[in-house]
Amino acid sequence: MPNTPLSRADFEKALRAKRRYYHIHHPYHKAMYGGQCTPEQIRGWVANRYYYQISIPRKDAAIMANCPDASVRRQWLQRVLDHDGHGEDEGGIEAWLALAESVGLSREEVIDQRHVLPGVRFAVDAYIAFARRASWQEAACSSLTELFAPEIHQSRLDSWPAHYPWIESGGYAYFRKRLAEARRDVEHGLSITLDSFVTAQEQARALEILQFKLDILWSMLDALAMAYVHQTPPYHTVTEEQVYHRGLDQ
Amino acid sequence: MPNTPLSRADFEKALRAKRRYYHIHHPYHKAMYGGQCTPEQIRGWVANRYYYQISIPRKDAAIMANCPDASVRRQWLQRVLDHDGHGEDEGGIEAWLALAESVGLSREEVIDQRHVLPGVRFAVDAYIAFARRASWQEAACSSLTELFAPEIHQSRLDSWPAHYPWIESGGYAYFRKRLAEARRDVEHGLSITLDSFVTAQEQARALEILQFKLDILWSMLDALAMAYVHQTPPYHTVTEEQVYHRGLDQ
Repeated sequence: MPNTPLSRADFEKALRAKRRYYHIHHPYHKAMYGGQCTPEQIRGWVANRYYYQISIPRKDAAIMANCPDASVRRQWLQRVLDHDGHGEDEGGIEAWLALAESVGLSREEVIDQRHVLPGVRFAVDAYIAFARRASWQEAACSSLTELFAPEIHQSRLDSWPAHYPWIESGGYAYFRKRLAEARRDVEHGLSITLDSFVTAQEQARALEILQFKLDILWSMLDALAMAYVHQTPPYHTVTEEQVYHRGLDQ
Repeated sequence: MPNTPLSRADFEKALRAKRRYYHIHHPYHKAMYGGQCTPEQIRGWVANRYYYQISIPRKDAAIMANCPDASVRRQWLQRVLDHDGHGEDEGGIEAWLALAESVGLSREEVIDQRHVLPGVRFAVDAYIAFARRASWQEAACSSLTELFAPEIHQSRLDSWPAHYPWIESGGYAYFRKRLAEARRDVEHGLSITLDSFVTAQEQARALEILQFKLDILWSMLDALAMAYVHQTPPYHTVTEEQVYHRGLDQ
């Protein structure tokens, strides 16, 4: 553990260097933007990632619940509105369901979570659980994979329409929506992190927290790879049914 | 959702029928007792399963923390003692470390959790998180994979010594120890479950909770398969280092 803290600029650089482990480098994601995915693999990703989408506002509400600063809560609330919708804006969850329909899934089979693999669920639930128990500053720090999100959304917008002409173009609204929102959110999360993690030990902790979040995103794709690439979804040796649990509503 | 509850005997039968989804049917486990595992695969399993072992007493303490009944706590405490040790008994965690050494791992590399894969960690953490937030009866129910544990411990004792002569025999004490303990524990957990889940809806909930626990055990082996069978541990496309986080001590 180093004893001299990084300068603010170098600490930001160290956080941004974690991009090396972003799930944009996962074989499943590379196959998606490389055009090598089957419709079933695209659908599996969309149906599973839905569980991440619906969990984000709960994660953000947990951060707000732990934050005594009204001005931070007021700003953080925008994330909940972005996903849950407000006024004319239907919100990101609804936009994700539009994407799901554009890749050939029914709303029903997405909403009832029948396709959500346990490995995806446990990874996402770890994110909510962390936000509930960590300080709001640590939980804000865990959101910093937003640093890398615009690039991944852009890669989908750039590559999917050409590779997957069978996807209806209306489905891409989610990625465009998030391109703008993620850029705004990251300024807030980054300034909280740079302000709150000051000593060398705190900075090391922040980097480990960001690694934890990167591990979540990578693990989600690993679970998808087992099911949709290796064709070994849970219980494949005993049944083809999707018998895994659908969440215990905690 | 059925409206007529099962009889006590049929409810127990339904719980026991969940054996069909026990991880004894996972290819990784089948390879272990079939003698097809490499030393690296055995070591990977032992080092990762260590994280499960050290989490069990925390899960059990969470159940006790939620239980207002002193007589239940008094009985449940035995599980914590079994793992953490007491008096002359060194406990299950120490026995697991002996197993780790007998398969060629150092205590240090197991205790520092460098080999614990994120997918394993998230699955195990889901078990602790559930025990913290669920009622003590629901959390007790989630422990019921103990119904199936004696068989899996016995299968290891029956097959490993012949298949893996390089494993020192002293390491098998853990499996023998758990054979007796699991049989005792399951009587308690089962009677709590049969007493507490009475309506048809409650019984369905209990079966879903047991499925949740089965999903945890299966997902752990899926993460191991990605790393040690498919040779694609996290971040394999960018580094061979084990950069994943080592737990945030929550």
